[in-house]
Amino acid sequence: MLFKHLRVHQVFGANTDVGKTILTTALVRASTALKRDVFYLKPISTGAMEDADDAHITRFTKPQNTTAKVSTECLYRFHVPVSPHLAAQLAAGDESEKIVPDKIFVNSIFSYVQRCAAAAAGPSHIYVETAGGVHSPTLSGTTQVDAYRPLFLPTILVGDSRLGGISATISAYESLLLRGYIVDAILLFRDEYYRNSEYLTPYFAERGVDVAAFDKPPPINPNPTQNVQETEEYYKSLDLASVQKSLTSRHEQRLTQLESMSKRSMDAFWWPFVQHGLVESRKDVTVIDSASGDFFSIYKDAENKKPLLSHQLDGSASWWTQTFGHANSSLTLAAARAAGRYGHVMFPQATHEPALRLAERLLHDGPGQNWASRVFFSDNGSTGMEVALKMALRTYSTRMGLQGADRKKLGVLGLKGSYHGDTIGAMDACAEEGVYTCEWHEAKGFWFDPPTVAIQDGVPVITLPEVLAKAAAPSDTRAPSDAVSWIYDIPARLDTRLAQSYRAFISSTLDSLERSGEQRLAALVLEPLVMGAGGMLFVDPLFQRVLIDVVRSRSNMPVIFDEVFVGLYRLGMQSTTAVLGTNPDIAVYAKILTGGVLPLAVTLTTDKIFEAFLSQDKATALLHGHSYTAHAVGCEVANESLRLIEKESRSEAWEQARGRWGVSVGGDGAWSLWDPEFIKAVSGLGNVVEVMTLGTVLAIKVKDAQGGYVSHSAQTLLQGLKDANLGSEDVYPPFSVHYRTLGNVAYFMTSLNTAPETIRALEGKIWTALESHSETVERRSRHF
Amino acid sequence: MLFKHLRVHQVFGANTDVGKTILTTALVRASTALKRDVFYLKPISTGAMEDADDAHITRFTKPQNTTAKVSTECLYRFHVPVSPHLAAQLAAGDESEKIVPDKIFVNSIFSYVQRCAAAAAGPSHIYVETAGGVHSPTLSGTTQVDAYRPLFLPTILVGDSRLGGISATISAYESLLLRGYIVDAILLFRDEYYRNSEYLTPYFAERGVDVAAFDKPPPINPNPTQNVQETEEYYKSLDLASVQKSLTSRHEQRLTQLESMSKRSMDAFWWPFVQHGLVESRKDVTVIDSASGDFFSIYKDAENKKPLLSHQLDGSASWWTQTFGHANSSLTLAAARAAGRYGHVMFPQATHEPALRLAERLLHDGPGQNWASRVFFSDNGSTGMEVALKMALRTYSTRMGLQGADRKKLGVLGLKGSYHGDTIGAMDACAEEGVYTCEWHEAKGFWFDPPTVAIQDGVPVITLPEVLAKAAAPSDTRAPSDAVSWIYDIPARLDTRLAQSYRAFISSTLDSLERSGEQRLAALVLEPLVMGAGGMLFVDPLFQRVLIDVVRSRSNMPVIFDEVFVGLYRLGMQSTTAVLGTNPDIAVYAKILTGGVLPLAVTLTTDKIFEAFLSQDKATALLHGHSYTAHAVGCEVANESLRLIEKESRSEAWEQARGRWGVSVGGDGAWSLWDPEFIKAVSGLGNVVEVMTLGTVLAIKVKDAQGGYVSHSAQTLLQGLKDANLGSEDVYPPFSVHYRTLGNVAYFMTSLNTAPETIRALEGKIWTALESHSETVERRSRHF
Repeated sequence: MLFKHLRVHQVFGANTDVGKTILTTALVRASTALKRDVFYLKPISTGAMEDADDAHITRFTKPQNTTAKVSTECLYRFHVPVSPHLAAQLAAGDESEKIVPDKIFVNSIFSYVQRCAAAAAGPSHIYVETAGGVHSPTLSGTTQVDAYRPLFLPTILVGDSRLGGISATISAYESLLLRGYIVDAILLFRDEYYRNSEYLTPYFAERGVDVAAFDKPPPINPNPTQNVQETEEYYKSLDLASVQKSLTSRHEQRLTQLESMSKRSMDAFWWPFVQHGLVESRKDVTVIDSASGDFFSIYKDAENKKPLLSHQLDGSASWWTQTFGHANSSLTLAAARAAGRYGHVMFPQATHEPALRLAERLLHDGPGQNWASRVFFSDNGSTGMEVALKMALRTYSTRMGLQGADRKKLGVLGLKGSYHGDTIGAMDACAEEGVYTCEWHEAKGFWFDPPTVAIQDGVPVITLPEVLAKAAAPSDTRAPSDAVSWIYDIPARLDTRLAQSYRAFISSTLDSLERSGEQRLAALVLEPLVMGAGGMLFVDPLFQRVLIDVVRSRSNMPVIFDEVFVGLYRLGMQSTTAVLGTNPDIAVYAKILTGGVLPLAVTLTTDKIFEAFLSQDKATALLHGHSYTAHAVGCEVANESLRLIEKESRSEAWEQARGRWGVSVGGDGAWSLWDPEFIKAVSGLGNVVEVMTLGTVLAIKVKDAQGGYVSHSAQTLLQGLKDANLGSEDVYPPFSVHYRTLGNVAYFMTSLNTAPETIRALEGKIWTALESHSETVERRSRHF
Repeated sequence: MLFKHLRVHQVFGANTDVGKTILTTALVRASTALKRDVFYLKPISTGAMEDADDAHITRFTKPQNTTAKVSTECLYRFHVPVSPHLAAQLAAGDESEKIVPDKIFVNSIFSYVQRCAAAAAGPSHIYVETAGGVHSPTLSGTTQVDAYRPLFLPTILVGDSRLGGISATISAYESLLLRGYIVDAILLFRDEYYRNSEYLTPYFAERGVDVAAFDKPPPINPNPTQNVQETEEYYKSLDLASVQKSLTSRHEQRLTQLESMSKRSMDAFWWPFVQHGLVESRKDVTVIDSASGDFFSIYKDAENKKPLLSHQLDGSASWWTQTFGHANSSLTLAAARAAGRYGHVMFPQATHEPALRLAERLLHDGPGQNWASRVFFSDNGSTGMEVALKMALRTYSTRMGLQGADRKKLGVLGLKGSYHGDTIGAMDACAEEGVYTCEWHEAKGFWFDPPTVAIQDGVPVITLPEVLAKAAAPSDTRAPSDAVSWIYDIPARLDTRLAQSYRAFISSTLDSLERSGEQRLAALVLEPLVMGAGGMLFVDPLFQRVLIDVVRSRSNMPVIFDEVFVGLYRLGMQSTTAVLGTNPDIAVYAKILTGGVLPLAVTLTTDKIFEAFLSQDKATALLHGHSYTAHAVGCEVANESLRLIEKESRSEAWEQARGRWGVSVGGDGAWSLWDPEFIKAVSGLGNVVEVMTLGTVLAIKVKDAQGGYVSHSAQTLLQGLKDANLGSEDVYPPFSVHYRTLGNVAYFMTSLNTAPETIRALEGKIWTALESHSETVERRSRHF
């Protein structure tokens, strides 16, 4: 919705009847005076606007003596002077019939602007008017600021010049701001008595917005000819030259700014996990102008007349954080509410409502239910894990009565491929494998090579490490049917031959570790079900469960679940305890916790762990804390996220997805938002090793000689997704896909509320990209 | 502003002329029907309200057949039907004369409510009306939602039932929400045509707010008697029983909730740095109901009729984070703007405007100017320091061509008393002294015992560690006058005998460390000027400067400045480089960076450091990143904070403070917001060892045999500040002080914009508390 040759503005009103249509008409005329072609779109017209309806516009936007072309259009027209949503109902007679879904409504505006851009011969202006005030309902009953938001058009706000209009104008501005809109100008009538513009001008100057005031129109003259003449004279008397200049200047600044961002970013940023030496050109930088729902709006330089912004699906859920899509207004309002009530307030030995509500919710209804009794706050998964490790190590030391140097040599037990964050303590809880290390990283502990699970050629399969594979029969590791539930039904598997083999192997390994006496192991640290950063490895849950059971039967080690990535329904269940059938002593949550808005982490634990630190001596306290511990904004956003998650977990989309995977209503078993037929089909492609999915996560391992973190194979294979604006039958506008890979593993991740049609469209694109590179594949019909 | 017996509500309007006074009258009458005494305050009345003015209220709020007492009051009265701020100007004739500052205006409402609470015989209700819409200007020209915010009264919003009223009502609600107000109910007229209440009821039900609609009043009857009668009948026809019930229920829920919070928090939280075994009773928990500017509003249980909420000064700036006070609406709006535009978006190899603007600002106009060229984002000071350490260690390894095991044995050089955060990597950069340690903490490096500076008995003094003290003369360490600038004038000191002695000592220590070959030192890590968590130790800046010079002259160690606490004007200067006269290679900022709202950290560095990671090999990238890296909300709040800081740095209050400390206009030298005379006086007290201050920070070391982190002496000495609601001549309402101590060091910290009168009042209270315990002190006159 950004073009070099087409200046686009949406006109919002601070209220009904503030002169929006008149001032838009004045803008249109001022544009023609600059010899610009003008497009004027009034998406909805209702009778309420009769005195300023299309006829009025048409009459006065075509001034004499201009060669500029003026096009006007109205998408939906009603003749009832009420809110559009009521007009839609009333006009239809049948209440349900004429209600136009926001998506269709907004897409028709999108199409209109695209058509204008193509049609515009030279530099042109377009004005998209809205109806009533900023929050007036749309045809389907949401309010305009929310409904129009995916378009993210630069905005002109028509202020209210009447008594009370200062308040109405500022509040309307704030509602726009809460949705991220950029207000390029505020226009309003001049009123010599209330002088609102005198107040508003410096008020908004402080906020970087220009205010311009204009004389009111003359009263309507009952004589039509005189009325036309007087109105024409009125419009001629208005001088919008400086407004036009400022709007054009802001348009140009926007173009310049966006055009320069990739280069400036390459010069100023040091990106995380990025080898800057491999960032070859400006085109390698994703310039995100805004985001909405599942999509980024990204800037790419383009020829004249072509759109500069396009939709890109956020295919990694922005590093696994997105929960209800970008710029969700419920979450924004939650952030605003807490910032407005507290800012950040001191937390040690203090309390505030957002933190307390969050803690109680996590303990009583959240992932801590039935086992946890304490919440420790920190800022991200890595710090949450450092807290967990400090808790576990101390508890173990205390339980075992360790003193002095003995306390300093403790290690952890875990799985190879684990990742718990990038602070050095969290790194030390992971094996030192491959490239992921640093000078101070010292792997402290022992890590098992874990059995993994995936779908190969349509069948769930367990891949065992060599040492276990020898003794296993094919029936131990290959599902009898295509049902993934075979893997995740732990009670049914606890007595199998494979379980016994796991048990024996783990026990003997621990025995020999103990005999060697090299390092005392003080905690079991797991990412349950899926090891994310380690390569999106789906671990055999039976192995993790048996490991926990064996460890608990023979030692005092606390068990830590790192659910930073996997928890809170990322995998379709609130906590992986539902599958594993056992609880941790300590667990960490982050990412989804704050709905994809800002950082916050919690470490949940039991009273037993808490009591290891309890005394009358300050020195034995858990001496860990960050300045913004339990910041109110994060806590309140988390509370709102958890409320929305609870609602989503009962949604129709989820029930349908559960049904496709054979999981009962509200069930916690193994299910996915991805389609089982799609999974099967991809798992049969010749260039695919295996595929796996749970909840929102899809991992595709592609064939590659090199493998590992530094492999580029998945990145290369799917490159097409990133570049092309692919069309789709059900999802408009067209979009490309932003995705991240982990070596030869391509993964995709949705929000919890991504629309089924979006996921279907993405599946189609992934299929196309993979199939086109799959030379040896027996061509399956695309039946998913 | 919360009482058991007195239910308080403030009535805001979605707009002017929405029926606010009529519905408030109805509320008043419904309260009397419940046999409640009612207080009705209309702080401002202007002619615009003439048709609904006090006479009108008085007439109809005293229904027949009631024994309830109704009191009405109006604080400021104007007869001009315009906005209050214009009315104030017009009524005064002289524009400046009658403008009432918000503070006085708000305090008079505060007093009124307190008087009502004292006067109320039994359970009572009070309604405080506002004028016009939520954002209508006050007498002094701010808008009401901002001006009334310190009172934080539970709110009733009168919605708009007219065309456009849906939008006006929602926007007004959002403006209230942005300031943290809790809306207990929305009342509006019923309009059969526009049916706004039908839309608003479910809309707000989803947001937890009840909406109630009422018939409109009859038109005014020209016959006064009939008018009275018809109006009386109208009011009688309204049924507000359920509204009253809901308002009372919310009042009671508020009381129950606040009363229960301390106990519930003791049960659910694991507080940072708190020994729960020492939290004896519920009274030890600070229950923060809201915060505004420099003050918490805290809940304490009280006898009937006594206020349950009181003001408490946030004396530690909420763990050193507060910058422009709590709930600053500019920062809230910045957070909202970014959340509304992006939420959080993926950062690696991507860019968005808030992050880019912040990075460029930090590099070009911020603490990185003249030396830094790259910004790495993380979430807090501790992670920012881990990034800095990873940068420095790798750079050193690469410069020295270290391989394999040699890379794993690196240490840092620093000062004893350092603190860089609580993640284990950051801890490892600090000496292991005293209690601050954990199982995995391994101090890696060497730390000098640093000379410190402070004011003793009015004179700046340098305290040398024993090894240096032997050779020093008194004139080396004692200022010739009371001017603190003697310490901070590094150019003048670089050639002194003391500097030579520092230089020789540092060189010989490094020589012997090298000879011992125990550990290779790879980075110099300093908290410049003040080591905060280590005990608010003011280090001799000359020692730090000489240390940097010596290190640079003989090794390849990068120099890291941990400016997390000291940077961004916490000490009155943007960066301590202004005093030290030299730049680091890496520096870390957090805390003030986000204005005291939410976590974000940046690590700034040079191209030379950046280049140590640059190659064509992904494995040599800096593999560090957090999910919410460079989150847009944090970056936008930081941008707004830096904008406000720049403004504040030129403020009159700062110029006056600089003047008191003899620093030139806009100067970067050693100055403080605390009064030099107060500092001198306190430094002479018998129970005080020494005092020191820079910028917003005041540290008072009290006499104590034990000392150290576990000492409670400072806490005990100043206990009075925490409990009593102390009055003050210039600061109303009365307040107590929330403060933190570090063993025998009491420290106090203001925001950057704390009002001078607040600091003066706090100085007075500190003086009183210390003096009352100071038995041996020669009683000075309190002349500061």
